[in-house]
Amino acid sequence: MTDQLTIALDGMGGDNAPDAVIEGADIARQRFPNARFLIFGDSLQLQPRLAAFPELQAVSEVRHTDEIVSSEDKPAQAVRRGRGSSMGLAIQAVRSGEAAVVVSGGNTGALMGMAKIMLKTMTGIDRPALVSTVPTLGEDVVMLDLGANVECTSDNLVQFAVMGAEFARAVLGRSRPKVGLLNVGVEELKGNDAVRSAGEKLKNMHGAFEFGGFVEGDGIAKGEMDVIVTDGFTGNIAIKTAEGTARMFGAFLAHAFRSSLFSRLGYLISRRALARFRERLDPRGYNGGVFLGLNGLVVKSHGGTDEHGFASAVAVAVRMAAEDLSGRIQEDLKVFGDVEGAESARQGVGE
Amino acid sequence: MTDQLTIALDGMGGDNAPDAVIEGADIARQRFPNARFLIFGDSLQLQPRLAAFPELQAVSEVRHTDEIVSSEDKPAQAVRRGRGSSMGLAIQAVRSGEAAVVVSGGNTGALMGMAKIMLKTMTGIDRPALVSTVPTLGEDVVMLDLGANVECTSDNLVQFAVMGAEFARAVLGRSRPKVGLLNVGVEELKGNDAVRSAGEKLKNMHGAFEFGGFVEGDGIAKGEMDVIVTDGFTGNIAIKTAEGTARMFGAFLAHAFRSSLFSRLGYLISRRALARFRERLDPRGYNGGVFLGLNGLVVKSHGGTDEHGFASAVAVAVRMAAEDLSGRIQEDLKVFGDVEGAESARQGVGE
Repeated sequence: MTDQLTIALDGMGGDNAPDAVIEGADIARQRFPNARFLIFGDSLQLQPRLAAFPELQAVSEVRHTDEIVSSEDKPAQAVRRGRGSSMGLAIQAVRSGEAAVVVSGGNTGALMGMAKIMLKTMTGIDRPALVSTVPTLGEDVVMLDLGANVECTSDNLVQFAVMGAEFARAVLGRSRPKVGLLNVGVEELKGNDAVRSAGEKLKNMHGAFEFGGFVEGDGIAKGEMDVIVTDGFTGNIAIKTAEGTARMFGAFLAHAFRSSLFSRLGYLISRRALARFRERLDPRGYNGGVFLGLNGLVVKSHGGTDEHGFASAVAVAVRMAAEDLSGRIQEDLKVFGDVEGAESARQGVGE
Repeated sequence: MTDQLTIALDGMGGDNAPDAVIEGADIARQRFPNARFLIFGDSLQLQPRLAAFPELQAVSEVRHTDEIVSSEDKPAQAVRRGRGSSMGLAIQAVRSGEAAVVVSGGNTGALMGMAKIMLKTMTGIDRPALVSTVPTLGEDVVMLDLGANVECTSDNLVQFAVMGAEFARAVLGRSRPKVGLLNVGVEELKGNDAVRSAGEKLKNMHGAFEFGGFVEGDGIAKGEMDVIVTDGFTGNIAIKTAEGTARMFGAFLAHAFRSSLFSRLGYLISRRALARFRERLDPRGYNGGVFLGLNGLVVKSHGGTDEHGFASAVAVAVRMAAEDLSGRIQEDLKVFGDVEGAESARQGVGE
């Protein structure tokens, strides 16, 4: 990680842009001295803010555009008209090779749609996937797909496993990640055809990860696996259900502490411990959904996050780029291609 | 609810049977004076325990059998050999009309399998569903299917909506339940074909419930709907993900309170408020998954629960039976049948 690494930032994406973008980039700069930034957006807004962070300014270049993709724009509109926007130009910087990765806090659908069309899907990958890390009782785990594809074949799921494992290696530092398939039971006969068939295929792959079999919904938070693979419909609902449950739990807890003078006092006394507890679940630490499987790395920062959340997203981007995540996925897919070919030949069947 | 109501109990089902069954029935008896119990199982074990609760004994009858469905039995084995078991005989009591509802804490797969074969699916319902209530920031909501069917058509989902709405009325007392379809977004174009098509059909139904449209995973805990409808694959994963998240949250919290002398002291001072908080999330209060859509009411109590959990399951059973849930579902299905017929005729298309 001594080489310079260029990161393209959508300076205007997100509710708190451009402040959160500039301040977040400055936090990330302190952690990653080899990073430099190409920041796209309205230079009249960006330059004065950047001037407040001279060390960031020294490693940044602002590229002006008046156009912005708004949170109301439909993906199709953005794809047609958004190429000259701060988001579109930032993606273009990855496409042209000027930047190693792009980070945007803008409209998710527009970012996915534009990235897919401008960067195109990687050879060997049929569908890109939305990936994130999630907190568990143990170490953080990687989960995908979180909503890019509502319907998935067994091959899609196998490709997600390959991509998720490389992501776990690059971003979480797991040397041989354990991959689990999300299912309604752990027995081999459980689940739908796509999941069962993906389970069979993964069992026969001897690649850069260990296949841990099926995992149930409550296995995510137990931290039984390093990578949780599922289709985008189930994954999106599971991750949002978990978020909703955590928020409900937090609200009930706050209510309990407010319920009497004694409980308020108890809260005051415990508040340092409770602050650590909240920190562990702080979504800003897990900011940076990643769009994997394209010819280029794309990180989506949460639209409503602050500078700390944006810095987390940049940190994910830096790790992925520094570990050459795309190159590693391509290598793994070659191995998978061989295995699949051998399997089909042996069994005399394709899917 | 002044008429007598007979409830068939699987006296041997569950980790804590028969104690939890007898003690749980006695707790329920105090709440529902019109309930009487048919208890199936080993009378040598059941009778002495029953003798300790003379008021329960006065409204109960023990029917002896030596046979038990174990937690290791495969559903297929249970279906072939389990008819003479405590579980099988309890279901038979519903089939013959002797009991209005059956409650078992035994093997879920065996209970579903036997109930499906012995009671048969209700006219107008293609697939039965597993239903439960779940806690939210507001009132409890009803959720289905939680795992009976891994693949569902739009008609299955519509039938789940009808059954779930009647369940919300009977068990939670909602006069006009609001039904939501679980999806990856709230816009009409989101989701897979089955969900979109079910959404269209529900929009055009003017039945005993209000269709609230699509709801995302985090909408469950917000309590936006009274009934959450989804396929059994997604529903099973969502409910288990929520359970896992709640357990993780609880573990982090316990860890925070143990982390220093101050935080321990704070815990002691707040513990009454925290006990209320825990009670609100106590799974024993939500015990009683229900298998809906058969010619007969079947309640599954959690295998590992205690007498309080079993009593909650019996309470759900009593409410369903007292409100004639099966009869109401059949009435609603007639209305739905008309609407669907009219829709198909108007549009000139079937599914």
